[in-house]
Amino acid sequence: MPIDIPEVVIDRLPVYARALKLLERDSREVVSSYELGEQLGVTPAQIRKDLSYFGRFGKQGRGYNVHRLLSELRQILGLEQQWTLALVGVGNLGRAILTYGGFAPEGFSIVEAFDANPEIVGQCVGELVVRDVKELPDILHRSPVDIGIVAVPAAAAQGVIDTLVSCGTKAILNYAPIAARVHRDIRMRYIDPVLALQSMTFYLKSAKVSAR
Amino acid sequence: MPIDIPEVVIDRLPVYARALKLLERDSREVVSSYELGEQLGVTPAQIRKDLSYFGRFGKQGRGYNVHRLLSELRQILGLEQQWTLALVGVGNLGRAILTYGGFAPEGFSIVEAFDANPEIVGQCVGELVVRDVKELPDILHRSPVDIGIVAVPAAAAQGVIDTLVSCGTKAILNYAPIAARVHRDIRMRYIDPVLALQSMTFYLKSAKVSAR
Repeated sequence: MPIDIPEVVIDRLPVYARALKLLERDSREVVSSYELGEQLGVTPAQIRKDLSYFGRFGKQGRGYNVHRLLSELRQILGLEQQWTLALVGVGNLGRAILTYGGFAPEGFSIVEAFDANPEIVGQCVGELVVRDVKELPDILHRSPVDIGIVAVPAAAAQGVIDTLVSCGTKAILNYAPIAARVHRDIRMRYIDPVLALQSMTFYLKSAKVSAR
Repeated sequence: MPIDIPEVVIDRLPVYARALKLLERDSREVVSSYELGEQLGVTPAQIRKDLSYFGRFGKQGRGYNVHRLLSELRQILGLEQQWTLALVGVGNLGRAILTYGGFAPEGFSIVEAFDANPEIVGQCVGELVVRDVKELPDILHRSPVDIGIVAVPAAAAQGVIDTLVSCGTKAILNYAPIAARVHRDIRMRYIDPVLALQSMTFYLKSAKVSAR
C-alpha cells in the first residue's frame, strides 16, 4: 500500500507532524486544514488530499484532533522508533552535525563518525571519537546502521555512498553537492543549500521584473 | 504568468539544471526525459510535465538539447544573476556555511556575517569579519541583501527573521528548526536534516515491516 503514495506527499508529512507538535505543546485540541495550511504555506485542499492517502482523519467542518492526527502521523512515518546513523566527514559541517542537538530528541542517534584525515581521526567531537574511514566497512558490517550521513567533499561522495550501501545502509542523507547514483531500493535525500537558494531566486527575479 | 506554476515544480528545476550541467560538462548534446528521469529518480512524464509549464523544449522522440535546455532553465530561475546574502549565526554551522565553496561559483555571494556572541564578533571567518548582530539593521538598511541565511538557535530564529524582513530581505534560507511565520510575500526555504530523515524512515519502516 505505501508504495503508491507519491514521494512528495511523504516529504510533506514530517512538516505537518512538526506543526501539530507545536500545536499540541500549546494545548490545542483541534486544528482546521485551513489554519494548518496558513501556518505552513500549503493550501487546505492539499493537506486534506495528502492525509486522505492514509484514511479519514478529520470530520467535515470540525477540523482535526491534534493529538490523534499527530500520533497517527508519527506511526505512519516511523517516528516512534529509534534509528541509528553513521556520519562520514568531520569537517566544519560534520562538526555542526555531530554537535547539533536536534537529532537525538527525534529518535535519530549518530553512533559512529568517520573521517579520512589523520589529524581528525581519533579526535573527540560531541560524544564520539572519530574513526578512520578505512575501518568503516568492518565496523558497519559488524554493527549496521539504518542511515548514513555523507558530509565529505563532492569528489569523495560517490565512493563513500557506495561503501555505505555495500555495508547494508538503506538510506543516505547526502550533504555533498553531487547527483549520486544509487540503486532504486536505497533512499537518498539531499541537503543542498544551493538548490534551495536556486528555487527562491525564481521568485526574487520575478519580483524584480514585475517591479520595473 | 510564473505565479501559476506550482512551487514543487520550481523546486525541481534547479535539480534538472544541475543534472544538465553535468551532462554538458561531459560534452553530451542531447538527453531524453527517460535518461534524465533515471538519473534523478523522477518519472520521464514528470520531467516533461514540469518543463511544459515553460514552453516546448524537446522534440518528440529526439530528447532535449542539453545546452539549450540548461540555458533556458538558468534564465527562468535567475541563475545568471549575482545574488547577495547575509548570514546570521556563526557557530559550527555558520562556519561551515561561510567556508563552503559551493555558493560563489553559483552566483551566491555572502557579503555579511553576524553573531550575538562577543567572543565571535570581530573574528575573521572565511573572507568576512563577523559583525555584531546589533549592527545588522543599520548595515542592511544601508546595503540591502537579496537573501538572509539564518543559522542561529531555534529560540532566536523568529526574531532574526523578523529583523531581516524589516530590512527589506525578501528571501530567507532558514537552518533553524522552527515553523517561522513570515508574510506570504517573503520566500522561505528550510534546511532541516530532521525533516529529511523523517521522510526516509517511512520507507525504512515499510521495508522492515514487509521483510517480516
